[in-house]
Amino acid sequence: MRTLKLFLEYDGTSFSGWQVQPGKRTVQGDIEKVLAKLLGEKVTLIGSGRTDAGVHAKGQVASFQTRSQRSPETILRALNATLNRDITVNKAMDLGTGSSFHARFSAKSRTYRYHIVLGRAPLRRRYAWEVSYPLDLTPMRQAALCLLGKRNFTAFSSAHAETKTRICHVKKACWTAHGDELIFTVEADRFLQGLVRSLVGTMVDIGRRRFQPDDMQRILRSRDRSSAGTTAPPHGLCLMEVKYR
Amino acid sequence: MRTLKLFLEYDGTSFSGWQVQPGKRTVQGDIEKVLAKLLGEKVTLIGSGRTDAGVHAKGQVASFQTRSQRSPETILRALNATLNRDITVNKAMDLGTGSSFHARFSAKSRTYRYHIVLGRAPLRRRYAWEVSYPLDLTPMRQAALCLLGKRNFTAFSSAHAETKTRICHVKKACWTAHGDELIFTVEADRFLQGLVRSLVGTMVDIGRRRFQPDDMQRILRSRDRSSAGTTAPPHGLCLMEVKYR
Repeated sequence: MRTLKLFLEYDGTSFSGWQVQPGKRTVQGDIEKVLAKLLGEKVTLIGSGRTDAGVHAKGQVASFQTRSQRSPETILRALNATLNRDITVNKAMDLGTGSSFHARFSAKSRTYRYHIVLGRAPLRRRYAWEVSYPLDLTPMRQAALCLLGKRNFTAFSSAHAETKTRICHVKKACWTAHGDELIFTVEADRFLQGLVRSLVGTMVDIGRRRFQPDDMQRILRSRDRSSAGTTAPPHGLCLMEVKYR
Repeated sequence: MRTLKLFLEYDGTSFSGWQVQPGKRTVQGDIEKVLAKLLGEKVTLIGSGRTDAGVHAKGQVASFQTRSQRSPETILRALNATLNRDITVNKAMDLGTGSSFHARFSAKSRTYRYHIVLGRAPLRRRYAWEVSYPLDLTPMRQAALCLLGKRNFTAFSSAHAETKTRICHVKKACWTAHGDELIFTVEADRFLQGLVRSLVGTMVDIGRRRFQPDDMQRILRSRDRSSAGTTAPPHGLCLMEVKYR
């Protein structure tokens, strides 16, 4: 079996997320359908992570194994010729036979970006959360600092998320301002379901003075989902990059 | 009668253009409906120009006259509270009674931008033309230079466009490159219907060597619509700014 690696970009607006679900349009489902037809065999596409419904990706990485001898160039061309315009394959690589590469388990870190725009922004509203109240970036930056390092994120993860551990190692967590946009960039070894949106929502509550900056530390320590703040909407979130060992 | 001036931004995707048309959703129609309800009288909203179906605007300017004494702040708030999220009013100004301001006739120039992205770009595809073939910017820039000054644009305007003259004074026409994006910026005293899209389409034909750079001059001189090239799709076009005397 050969292993192939794909670099994907997609607009999450019309997808019910990454993972195949019966009767719903998903990124994994759309790509697997084209691959099965092209390669003449059922293929399981593994994503570096399962983006939720409405979440976008510029740098999603996926892998699959196949018996087919089709070249990565042919696979890339066939996928892009068939897939809807809201998904594209930017690169396809042949990792050969016997590769141990696994898009999910071999990943060292994922980087997400969350976009906020202050006020109404018709031309950016599909890719940013339009926030209508003023936000003070200073306490939001203070709160982001608390996230760095190995932390237990139980308070910020969906109760039903199946996972052995809720500890994530956050390597980068920072807010930057660009005109009327605030961007939160976060890199970690792994992410729990809904984590970034829950963190962003709580930091926005801090930025609008509903919470204090040191509430971030308090909520983390509580390990109680009900103590966290708002959950930010999915369409402001984008998976930017996946790093591998 | 007081005159009010509005600065508008909209995502043209779901509109059949600016101008009111029976049974269709238009920018002018959406705003006039809210104004009529708010001000208790029928209002005619004049735009600096009538953007076509699918064309976006970041800096559209519109004006209307009213007997109502509502403040511009109240009007702005009411419009933004009621309008769909694909339109927003960024500013509302009271020009007082007896003002001779007219969003269309008082305009000195309009600036449009056309966005091209090279290759597939799921996250930008609603606001840029995705071009799948290589483009050489040098001849496109040469062609853009031919547009400067007072020119007769008959060859690039829709045959059915009602207008007294097809002469436009182009003050700026240039291509810039930003990563995988090519942006055409054009400023002129006036624009004919479909002009920018027709110019961009022809320059793209020049960039892909279907036409020569000096074909632009030849087509302009021909004053014959059938000699121009492709028409670029509307969703790459955005009205950026309107300048007034």
